Amino acid sequence: MKVTIDLNADLGESYGRWVLGDDEAMLDVVTSANIACGFHAGDPAVLLSACRMAAKRGVAIGAQVGYRDLPGFGRRFIDVDPAELTAEVVYQIAALDGLARAAGTRVRYVKPHGALYNAVVTHEAQAGAVVEGIRLAGQDLAVLGLPGSILLQAAGEAGLPTVAEAFADRGYTPAGTLVPRSAPGAVLHDPEEVAARVVRLAVSGTVRAVDGSEVSVTAQSVCVHGDSPGAVGMATAVREALSAAGVRVAPFAPESP
Amino acid sequence: MKVTIDLNADLGESYGRWVLGDDEAMLDVVTSANIACGFHAGDPAVLLSACRMAAKRGVAIGAQVGYRDLPGFGRRFIDVDPAELTAEVVYQIAALDGLARAAGTRVRYVKPHGALYNAVVTHEAQAGAVVEGIRLAGQDLAVLGLPGSILLQAAGEAGLPTVAEAFADRGYTPAGTLVPRSAPGAVLHDPEEVAARVVRLAVSGTVRAVDGSEVSVTAQSVCVHGDSPGAVGMATAVREALSAAGVRVAPFAPESP
Amino acid sequence: MKVTIDLNADLGESYGRWVLGDDEAMLDVVTSANIACGFHAGDPAVLLSACRMAAKRGVAIGAQVGYRDLPGFGRRFIDVDPAELTAEVVYQIAALDGLARAAGTRVRYVKPHGALYNAVVTHEAQAGAVVEGIRLAGQDLAVLGLPGSILLQAAGEAGLPTVAEAFADRGYTPAGTLVPRSAPGAVLHDPEEVAARVVRLAVSGTVRAVDGSEVSVTAQSVCVHGDSPGAVGMATAVREALSAAGVRVAPFAPESP
Amino acid sequence: MKVTIDLNADLGESYGRWVLGDDEAMLDVVTSANIACGFHAGDPAVLLSACRMAAKRGVAIGAQVGYRDLPGFGRRFIDVDPAELTAEVVYQIAALDGLARAAGTRVRYVKPHGALYNAVVTHEAQAGAVVEGIRLAGQDLAVLGLPGSILLQAAGEAGLPTVAEAFADRGYTPAGTLVPRSAPGAVLHDPEEVAARVVRLAVSGTVRAVDGSEVSVTAQSVCVHGDSPGAVGMATAVREALSAAGVRVAPFAPESP
Repeated sequence: MKVTIDLNADLGESYGRWVLGDDEAMLDVVTSANIACGFHAGDPAVLLSACRMAAKRGVAIGAQVGYRDLPGFGRRFIDVDPAELTAEVVYQIAALDGLARAAGTRVRYVKPHGALYNAVVTHEAQAGAVVEGIRLAGQDLAVLGLPGSILLQAAGEAGLPTVAEAFADRGYTPAGTLVPRSAPGAVLHDPEEVAARVVRLAVSGTVRAVDGSEVSVTAQSVCVHGDSPGAVGMATAVREALSAAGVRVAPFAPESP
Repeated sequence: MKVTIDLNADLGESYGRWVLGDDEAMLDVVTSANIACGFHAGDPAVLLSACRMAAKRGVAIGAQVGYRDLPGFGRRFIDVDPAELTAEVVYQIAALDGLARAAGTRVRYVKPHGALYNAVVTHEAQAGAVVEGIRLAGQDLAVLGLPGSILLQAAGEAGLPTVAEAFADRGYTPAGTLVPRSAPGAVLHDPEEVAARVVRLAVSGTVRAVDGSEVSVTAQSVCVHGDSPGAVGMATAVREALSAAGVRVAPFAPESP
Repeated sequence: MKVTIDLNADLGESYGRWVLGDDEAMLDVVTSANIACGFHAGDPAVLLSACRMAAKRGVAIGAQVGYRDLPGFGRRFIDVDPAELTAEVVYQIAALDGLARAAGTRVRYVKPHGALYNAVVTHEAQAGAVVEGIRLAGQDLAVLGLPGSILLQAAGEAGLPTVAEAFADRGYTPAGTLVPRSAPGAVLHDPEEVAARVVRLAVSGTVRAVDGSEVSVTAQSVCVHGDSPGAVGMATAVREALSAAGVRVAPFAPESP
Repeated sequence: MKVTIDLNADLGESYGRWVLGDDEAMLDVVTSANIACGFHAGDPAVLLSACRMAAKRGVAIGAQVGYRDLPGFGRRFIDVDPAELTAEVVYQIAALDGLARAAGTRVRYVKPHGALYNAVVTHEAQAGAVVEGIRLAGQDLAVLGLPGSILLQAAGEAGLPTVAEAFADRGYTPAGTLVPRSAPGAVLHDPEEVAARVVRLAVSGTVRAVDGSEVSVTAQSVCVHGDSPGAVGMATAVREALSAAGVRVAPFAPESP
């Protein structure tokens, strides 16, 4: 049986006059698009365009829900009230799903963005609020997140499908967690090296940790960056290496009936 | 056969710390709630709460789409690009519908707000953009608007149900149009007089114009204000007068299957 | 020599269509107005109007700087980068000072708002960022804050005048700190009792703590609420009790030359 | 006596994560920087950085006031109330001036941005509101605008210094006005041709119109674009051609005392 993996990236993050990343090029490479929902980035016209480009290529659309924080691009923790966060998650998922439907497809999963992604690894109230928002949005959407996070645990307990992801260009500790960004080896920059790591991860379920040891990492999806200068090049290198290694690259989230 | 009319009001227009109007009291009186969608007013928590209160009372929810303009409360004309406006309309309808579904109901119609409402009376490009947005949002939602407006005409041509509304407290010209706000007799303030006018409108399809003549006005819904100081009192007077006159007050928009 | 105390309140917190509090009535009572700067509340027209009303009455204007967070009214902690916070503080103070100058007066002091006020009690990086912003804004503005806060300490070290405030309607612990809002006795509601406490504070520098003990509290200014339903009544009761007790009520911040 | 001309460009238009243009490179070429004020673009940290880079190079800072419209980048006409616009202009000028002072310099002039720039060519109420805002902001700032515009006329009548500008890469009609963007010849793309036109404009006060005729254009400043892909290259070509032709390039606005 052929090994399968999903590649996801953050897209739809332009806003009005401000362009960020090359959505069209990235959509030729990834199989799942975490599309912004207008709270940290993405105006409706940008989002509709991103949905249409994704639909055309059969790329699965995920709602990249975030804090309501355009000036901070959703990258600052906000101590938002859980009940408000729940309503904000429903609003974002539904808004993006409406644009996805206008583009002939649907939102198939949810992935929190930026500081919210980091918060729900450990913040029980916000993780619970996000899960409640996904549940209220209906459709039993899959939740894409960090392995071991409170978010995935709470989503599982709520009966939602959960999907663990790995990061193509991040270093791992011997314990299988991410090397903090402030520490040496946190981010890898060489496309060849990154591509080789993703292949190993897909094929053998392991990565080489910063201390050189082999560590087991289970992930159904691998996140590649969408907006850095070399983003398209690195994502392409990863995709090509996976194909060369005989790994099938496909969305983890099934099409809606 | 009993005469039936709908009463609609703008609701869900609080925002964070700022409270506007008494949504709960108004929802005890009206049969259709034009709920804001977050662009001119209404944060997600406010909107979810409004949807829940409406659902509990069987009040029909309409998406009150507006310009993206919190500082101006959607009351200033914005020369927005039609393609962007279309995407903004889809986004707003879908977001509110998601919250309505979370509240156990659905959005049943669309009514533009404020300056957008006024613009689409005559502005072909923006009227067309709004209709295209409603069409893309799916569900064949009814469009509530001003009789004779380009909006209703374009909506009809696009195959959408259209509903004409009258205004409870506005003066009418002998031609059946609204007296401009700058002219004498534009706004009526006496609840008794307003209530009597609405009864006449429902029963005989006429209003007394500013010059004293009788003018024919066809409307399936009557708009009462939601946020002025005496709003609840005036709406209540209208509702009671209609009941006393044997007029049935009910939503114009059918429940979704 | 006559005892003197200042009364301060948060004002200028309306925004567009949304009205909050009765600025005009409060400005007849207080001697220092913490006027919002547009980041958590207050649009430029509201702020200009508040400055004009304050100038007319000789009420001292303070810049009520806050997080850039209209949906949360500046009441949620945001983990903003200190360098960005510094620039935001300069921007807010300068913008309000421009409006104050247009009204014939000047900003005379700075008081952080809401969650920022709470954060800079203990958060060294944000407190330092606020002080740096005040320093860069020039004019050696006084800083109004909580006694014992990192903010006042850092401001003092930077050579800025510091002013400690007490809260008219808050309970105090035997240690002289505020009773947390979640605990019994946190907030006092009786205008007479509140007024009597403020008089005692002004005259003897003490308050009765929640356990009945007498505790020393040093404050040159007392904060009264500006936006709660009974705000004007309570502020008036305080002001009248102070006058009756022979306490002079006057701004702590001198007029600019 | 040596001919002198000023080169101005729109700068400080990045926002949070979104970068627009290369401010540092443009500041090495132009002599006046129209720096955004946070309403259509530019967050406080971006603006402070732009002010510091301008101050370091002796580039004059102008306040590029605009509509409060981040999603539309200030490029859509907004029918804003004149009294509100006046307050918004004061707020923007003062905020930027505070950041300029923090950078060791001052705002020396005002230039409206985008749709507001276009509106005040003919819109009397908005032009008057902008002038009133500049007047209230104090300092008798110069106003940079389109020759023949209502804005410059109203500014002159209010006793403010006015400065007419030409556009480096725009076509002119035989009447000396700009060719509308929808017409052929509206925009020139060849840096050599643009540079030669600017030299002729500076030296002889004329440009060749679209019909080949020579037309007189009086301008003390020439606007070069700051954010298009070839912006730095074209601005550099213009600057070098002016130097080669012996034209002095210097700010029109004097330093504050």
